[in-house]
Amino acid sequence: MTTRWEALFSEGGRSIRGSAVRELFKVFRPGMISLGGGMPAPETFPCEDVARVCQKVLQEHGATALQYGQTEGYNPLRDYIAEVFMAGMGLHARRDNVLITTGGLQVSDLLPKVLVDPGDAIVVEEPTFLGSLASFSPYRPRYITIPLDAQGMRVDLVEEALSRERKVKFIYTIPNFHNPAGCTLSLERRRRLVALADRYGVPILEDDPYAQLRYSGEPLPPLIVLDQQQLGVGPGDEAYQEGNVLYAGSFSKILSPGMRLGWVVGPAPIISQMARAKQGTDLHTSLLVQMIAYELCREGFFPAHIERIRALYRHRRDLMVQKMREHFPPEASWNVPDGGLFLWVTLPEGCDTQKMLEEALQVGVTFVPGPGFYATGGGRNALRLNFSNASDEQIEEGIARLGKVLQKFVQSCPPS
Amino acid sequence: MTTRWEALFSEGGRSIRGSAVRELFKVFRPGMISLGGGMPAPETFPCEDVARVCQKVLQEHGATALQYGQTEGYNPLRDYIAEVFMAGMGLHARRDNVLITTGGLQVSDLLPKVLVDPGDAIVVEEPTFLGSLASFSPYRPRYITIPLDAQGMRVDLVEEALSRERKVKFIYTIPNFHNPAGCTLSLERRRRLVALADRYGVPILEDDPYAQLRYSGEPLPPLIVLDQQQLGVGPGDEAYQEGNVLYAGSFSKILSPGMRLGWVVGPAPIISQMARAKQGTDLHTSLLVQMIAYELCREGFFPAHIERIRALYRHRRDLMVQKMREHFPPEASWNVPDGGLFLWVTLPEGCDTQKMLEEALQVGVTFVPGPGFYATGGGRNALRLNFSNASDEQIEEGIARLGKVLQKFVQSCPPS
Repeated sequence: MTTRWEALFSEGGRSIRGSAVRELFKVFRPGMISLGGGMPAPETFPCEDVARVCQKVLQEHGATALQYGQTEGYNPLRDYIAEVFMAGMGLHARRDNVLITTGGLQVSDLLPKVLVDPGDAIVVEEPTFLGSLASFSPYRPRYITIPLDAQGMRVDLVEEALSRERKVKFIYTIPNFHNPAGCTLSLERRRRLVALADRYGVPILEDDPYAQLRYSGEPLPPLIVLDQQQLGVGPGDEAYQEGNVLYAGSFSKILSPGMRLGWVVGPAPIISQMARAKQGTDLHTSLLVQMIAYELCREGFFPAHIERIRALYRHRRDLMVQKMREHFPPEASWNVPDGGLFLWVTLPEGCDTQKMLEEALQVGVTFVPGPGFYATGGGRNALRLNFSNASDEQIEEGIARLGKVLQKFVQSCPPS
Repeated sequence: MTTRWEALFSEGGRSIRGSAVRELFKVFRPGMISLGGGMPAPETFPCEDVARVCQKVLQEHGATALQYGQTEGYNPLRDYIAEVFMAGMGLHARRDNVLITTGGLQVSDLLPKVLVDPGDAIVVEEPTFLGSLASFSPYRPRYITIPLDAQGMRVDLVEEALSRERKVKFIYTIPNFHNPAGCTLSLERRRRLVALADRYGVPILEDDPYAQLRYSGEPLPPLIVLDQQQLGVGPGDEAYQEGNVLYAGSFSKILSPGMRLGWVVGPAPIISQMARAKQGTDLHTSLLVQMIAYELCREGFFPAHIERIRALYRHRRDLMVQKMREHFPPEASWNVPDGGLFLWVTLPEGCDTQKMLEEALQVGVTFVPGPGFYATGGGRNALRLNFSNASDEQIEEGIARLGKVLQKFVQSCPPS
């Protein structure tokens, strides 16, 4: 009897499926135009700067960079994130409020590892980031789904859910330039959401990988800052201990996704328990990668670099929207996001974007069909487009090709 | 009501505790002699080579190295591991048999993520690597513990356990230069263990991070190779599909632990399910790190580098054993391992190595007390010493200091 591995799969293990985006990654061929994944523009990658600081790190601190490090992360980088990045948003945080992670996504694995027993509830937006659903699902949560509108998550429905449901372990939200829906949570709803978290004692995981990528409109305070204000947390020499919000940040969109570097900020006690959970997953995040990023921070590399990225992506967003107006059928609708990487397109009910993808692949353009972003089903008539990774020519040609596919499908959709 | 995070912890989350080694890391002060952690010698780190190939990778393939990559890993590195590293051990493997991981330890997180429901059993050696216990425990397994002797795991007792127990999801073993016990599984027991795995349909996780670090004696075939022979798997153009063994390897001891790079090899279907599980944990391992390691592989860097490491560690092992003979009380016993990083010392029953550590810290030397390596309790009278990280002077001074502490404690141990 040779091991039949599948017969040994746990209930959590059976629930693990390949993501729609990752599968697209595999069928992608040269010549295709990818409007699918959430990839940054490679021309923004600072290859020379990374090579230069890597050299410096290895020359000056090689024995540290290549050795085991502490699970919590490289202390100068933790300090920088607390005292520059997060302080710049108005947060009072110290080193022990920060855990460095292997990409921002790792936060979505570590938090349910600490909090979720099978059957416990997680409140998620619908649609939501499919990567986080892939992280949560092996812990076998029950999903309570909250729809979005132009002002973001329908916080009134969160209140209804919290007053009704027990064993809600956390609320997962992407307040800025939502992936995939593009919307941004309004200030009023932000205030109401942090008040709810406090009233019901239910924490929030605020996933904010696009924080720095705003192209229009005014920045809004993160939930974690509003929560501190509500609790009266002020500046201090020590890490803060109380609070309802964990904030996940990332270097993926401002430096490099391939390096896999993110962080989570929150009250020291939960940060330290997540660090213990991280000990058993990858021990610590690559120190070489952390030290390269820190060296760039220390040099003051990021502000001007982020400006360049914003100018490029703003232009690409605007171009894509313009081309969509030209080529898409009038039945297709979308909002114009103030930042981030994505446009979310809704077609008449009855359209099947999964089938549409097969046809789009034939004409050499990819997107992500809606269903992958729905925790409990739905989204068949929606699709996500990425505007950060394609050149002007690719955007023009890709949207023109996709427009033809959409025109055809919209005409043959059964009426809703 | 502010969130009381601890009240929200899941059963798995409550089981997560800081490891004894990681805690040592924190109390460590300059001037102390560390015989505690399993750290490689920093003088073996090829800082200049890493800096040089990093520059090359970023110059020639920067847009790939800094971009998102596929979860399974960088294909040239997967090929190299299959066709050079594993083929060199006698295994017939192809790209799709290999998943690149964020350190070898990540394998110990991904496998139970796919296989273990709460209450399912894992067979582990006792003592065993405490890092893997930290990985397994949040999945709330039942541990079936198997003692070790000079020939490694008592495979006769594994047979007894498998004939008695249901729902054994896998057998975890460190066959070479066991961490912490130093023993190596004999060839006869290896054959018997793979036969048992096949008879009972229970897979084996073969953890082999020290494979290349043999200082004396002849190499023995890995379990994964014996399993292939038993199943009659031959060379092929395609990845192999059947088999009972997953093999975890690591770059930590032959290149750098701080870069966090390892791999797992096994039948393609379980490798691809583990890759899907990895999607939700960290998406993929740092591509920059993977490409640096691959470039060193391609250059033929490793054979001579590994020879240098082996010569250094062989010398340190021999020196430490010599000094232990001089300074340790006759009641202390240990075996001389044929490789790896550790010496395992057993004291008379009644000695408490946890208390002994407090005294050792006072005189500026660290080790890891035994209990952390025991899944179900025990090991109070044992301790682990690391010989790879300390200089000759530190070994001489550290063992002399520790000898005094041991002498004192052994005399005051209650007789067993």
